[in-house]
Amino acid sequence: MMERVAIVGTGLIGASVGLALREAGFAGEIAGWDRQREEAQTAFDRGALTAVTDDPEGAARGSDVIVLATPVLGVLDWMERLAPALAAGQLLTDVGSTKREIAAAARRLYPRKSEGTPVGAEFLPGHPMAGKERGGAALAEAGLFRGAMWLFTPVDAERTAARDEWRSWVERFGARTLDMDAARHDEMCAWVSHLPQMLSTAFAAMLEERFGDAPEMGAIGGRALREIARLGASPYSMWRDVAMTNTEAIAGSLLAFEQELAHVRENLRTPELREEFLRANRFRSRRD
Amino acid sequence: MMERVAIVGTGLIGASVGLALREAGFAGEIAGWDRQREEAQTAFDRGALTAVTDDPEGAARGSDVIVLATPVLGVLDWMERLAPALAAGQLLTDVGSTKREIAAAARRLYPRKSEGTPVGAEFLPGHPMAGKERGGAALAEAGLFRGAMWLFTPVDAERTAARDEWRSWVERFGARTLDMDAARHDEMCAWVSHLPQMLSTAFAAMLEERFGDAPEMGAIGGRALREIARLGASPYSMWRDVAMTNTEAIAGSLLAFEQELAHVRENLRTPELREEFLRANRFRSRRD
Repeated sequence: MMERVAIVGTGLIGASVGLALREAGFAGEIAGWDRQREEAQTAFDRGALTAVTDDPEGAARGSDVIVLATPVLGVLDWMERLAPALAAGQLLTDVGSTKREIAAAARRLYPRKSEGTPVGAEFLPGHPMAGKERGGAALAEAGLFRGAMWLFTPVDAERTAARDEWRSWVERFGARTLDMDAARHDEMCAWVSHLPQMLSTAFAAMLEERFGDAPEMGAIGGRALREIARLGASPYSMWRDVAMTNTEAIAGSLLAFEQELAHVRENLRTPELREEFLRANRFRSRRD
Repeated sequence: MMERVAIVGTGLIGASVGLALREAGFAGEIAGWDRQREEAQTAFDRGALTAVTDDPEGAARGSDVIVLATPVLGVLDWMERLAPALAAGQLLTDVGSTKREIAAAARRLYPRKSEGTPVGAEFLPGHPMAGKERGGAALAEAGLFRGAMWLFTPVDAERTAARDEWRSWVERFGARTLDMDAARHDEMCAWVSHLPQMLSTAFAAMLEERFGDAPEMGAIGGRALREIARLGASPYSMWRDVAMTNTEAIAGSLLAFEQELAHVRENLRTPELREEFLRANRFRSRRD
């Protein structure tokens, strides 16, 4: 039974996990730590934590479940750092946006016996497909994961009580869950998440460079501009780690999209533009 | 005083103009015509029109204000067709997405005497920056223009009672208005409206081509996917005319964006990615 939770990294996602746990009826302790102490304090003030800790290793050692909610490179660092400190019966999980490197580290640092007996703490890689264009505990919400997909990329098929319990909390957050292979996860996320981020950033950066504070720009833009540029507010700190740990797949999706745009550009006055619109219409009508 | 209005093209925008007029207190007649008679019938059933007409020329002849709400090439056709039928004291306006060719046609077909005396019907080119990703009278709303920008690209600086009255109705719809030069309008709209449309269409078309009905695609995509692909549902019928009448500016914005994406792709692991995120962050924080 999960009674004590530690959250390492109490920004938007970490603090939202704390709030979601509370709202779902978790009555135990939630200790939180953040590299920026004021983030942990904000998370505490908002009710996401029962305690702010200055000793994340100690808090992890004393917890049933440890949630790593930093950017991906931070998750990898904490996996390394906590491995010697944790023991059988403890579950480590994360919310990182890429999973291939994390799953590989889990196999190496948190190995399982083939017969399924825990030999030490176990690691369950996770990724809630939820967020906002800006981070920080101040924007955290208990309902952030409601209706969202929470992906897991388990390193083996084993079912343990601890994993099942964490999955059931995630479902109580209102999220749907799906298990995927870590490499497939990273490949798919390159198309549906990382490419949208990069194109929104590129779009907003290009307009900033070209138009700066031209007053008409803000005045005439409507919903299309707001939506396409929205993710331009996203922080580099998080996306640097995504770009570093999924470079090849993201570069592939960007190159394919550049080619698609060139095709549209070369066909603005030909019937092929119609085919392009019809393909896009089909994509959209599948999903309504 | 505007007492009779004709709406030529009663799809999403035309029918929304009718509903907005009603909601703003217009108590006169609103005759509507659409190439697809059922669209006019739907607009009538929803209360956007007081009559469906089968004789758009006759309805135009008997109206104080005629609103052309077809795609751009249709606007150009109707301008040509109605010019001989209309007379001084009548105002023709439109809601087309590009304005350079329409303003040029207005100068040619609806000329003004230099001293400002109307010599025939007058034409005021307009463009509400509002819409939905799908068209049709069934989706029309009285509040569609609330908070939106309604651009005008007048062909001269003359103020007439008819123009002033139409502007005041537009303001009663809840829209803000701004006057622009038609060429500047088309150039700016290429960046803030036509490029977002083309990139959304290209994005959705590319995913359709690559993933078709792969179940994970729908399952794992979150808000970013939904937003970037939303305009993929937009109809070719409308955008063909935009592409035809603003080809050069759209091609220019697409090429610049392809280059921006290539720059991101080549810098996924360099500090230049940080600069790109910071530029995008600046663009977004200017507009919050």
